[in-house]
Amino acid sequence: MNRRKERFRTDKILQHTEHFKVKFNETDALGIVWHGNYIGYFEDGREAFGRAFGISYKDIQEHGYATPIVKVLSEHQKPLRYADDAYIITTYVDCAAAKMIFNFEIYNAKDELVCTGETVQVFTDFAGNLSLTIPPFLESWKKKVGML
Amino acid sequence: MNRRKERFRTDKILQHTEHFKVKFNETDALGIVWHGNYIGYFEDGREAFGRAFGISYKDIQEHGYATPIVKVLSEHQKPLRYADDAYIITTYVDCAAAKMIFNFEIYNAKDELVCTGETVQVFTDFAGNLSLTIPPFLESWKKKVGML
Amino acid sequence: MNRRKERFRTDKILQHTEHFKVKFNETDALGIVWHGNYIGYFEDGREAFGRAFGISYKDIQEHGYATPIVKVLSEHQKPLRYADDAYIITTYVDCAAAKMIFNFEIYNAKDELVCTGETVQVFTDFAGNLSLTIPPFLESWKKKVGML
Amino acid sequence: MNRRKERFRTDKILQHTEHFKVKFNETDALGIVWHGNYIGYFEDGREAFGRAFGISYKDIQEHGYATPIVKVLSEHQKPLRYADDAYIITTYVDCAAAKMIFNFEIYNAKDELVCTGETVQVFTDFAGNLSLTIPPFLESWKKKVGML
Repeated sequence: MNRRKERFRTDKILQHTEHFKVKFNETDALGIVWHGNYIGYFEDGREAFGRAFGISYKDIQEHGYATPIVKVLSEHQKPLRYADDAYIITTYVDCAAAKMIFNFEIYNAKDELVCTGETVQVFTDFAGNLSLTIPPFLESWKKKVGML
Repeated sequence: MNRRKERFRTDKILQHTEHFKVKFNETDALGIVWHGNYIGYFEDGREAFGRAFGISYKDIQEHGYATPIVKVLSEHQKPLRYADDAYIITTYVDCAAAKMIFNFEIYNAKDELVCTGETVQVFTDFAGNLSLTIPPFLESWKKKVGML
Repeated sequence: MNRRKERFRTDKILQHTEHFKVKFNETDALGIVWHGNYIGYFEDGREAFGRAFGISYKDIQEHGYATPIVKVLSEHQKPLRYADDAYIITTYVDCAAAKMIFNFEIYNAKDELVCTGETVQVFTDFAGNLSLTIPPFLESWKKKVGML
Repeated sequence: MNRRKERFRTDKILQHTEHFKVKFNETDALGIVWHGNYIGYFEDGREAFGRAFGISYKDIQEHGYATPIVKVLSEHQKPLRYADDAYIITTYVDCAAAKMIFNFEIYNAKDELVCTGETVQVFTDFAGNLSLTIPPFLESWKKKVGML
């Protein structure tokens, strides 16, 4: 717990929990969710977080930025199966760089940890040019949510 | 056979055969290819046809048109499974309207019919405005391939 | 309207409406939902219907049946885009054969019709053997929901 | 280069290169390949490697094992777009544990590095029980390909 806290610049932890049900077409011939589909769950988690805190892809686009993913990590502890109830906890990981980092934890209906993950996004304009500094809208957002 | 021929304005039949192997992530928990993934096979078939005859999405885009799908039909006779070898026969169905119609037949390695399908596409500009007349490039293409 | 009613054996219409938001990863390079992803929306609609009326894939599996799709039809009137709010109306189409037929209508937030569709499913055991007669559980279900 | 070599127990490097063309339905509304689809490219790379060296999912299944993914890492340097020609180099990373580790490098047609990745798989039986020791078939395979 302590170690985790140190990664944050402030004590403020922004977190959102989103419940979902595994879809049939997310499973594979092993009868479990195909591992690549967790990347979609992470996006669902980020978007649910974004809608909750006003920083969805759409909000960001309206400020003139795209946020392409530059890194994805997923680690799998247990499988999920068709029609399983599950939930994803999405945590914003504050950092000083011009990046957005999210951590993910997915749990099944028994509250067992199924999967953890991380995504890192950068900021570009719509022509794909990288922003080396933190976009002003992100600074404003951080102030609004109590991170700065 | 006769009936089929009548659908064509000319005797010229443009057809392309593309072989493929079923991917693991195309299967579902029943152990068979999830039915929605056949729509991707149809797109693969259309694109292989397009590359063979110079009328892929990319070729069409270079003429200033997008070709959104307005109708998809798929009918399923047999399942495909992970690692199955299969092939798709894509046939251009000539028609007098400002549309592109393709028929698809997918066969397994035993040459058994697995799936048939049809897609209908219209022509729009990149703002989404429908072209009510056949685009000039399509007329040229039809002449080049011997349909007009 | 009259024509539609005639397709039903009874006046009882079972229908379920499910709201959804378009995901970023459902869009394509034209900026609209890729047409093949509507097949997933139809499955979501069927499953929401199934949970509402006790006839989801999972319910059916517990009776020893799989219900592979043998036909899919989709027709597209308008595009959907990332983050659009939409809803799908799923209607059970009663029929005398050993099949399950569903109709779908997808509307955008302005209540404009975006897409219509139909799926036809048959009943098999888990080894894939087709059931030529209506499974007893389906007869019971029809009675329970007032169709017989 | 030196550093990389040290990760291997032997000097034998097993590597396979597979060419592919980006499909339209792999793109998203930013006009680039959606990041989650790279997990599918990794699977394609692993499978192409597996067919080349006799260790595909199917080969492994015939020995009574499934190989669920327990970790995925992807890092993205450049985007890929619809119809881009690209290739994936899949490298088997030898390790002493009951795991299979693969590294991936994806390059575009200009030989620019687009994406790197890693997957880690474990061995289970079809009931999902983890194998704590290296399966005999893997030992045999390693001998056959000159790793042991």
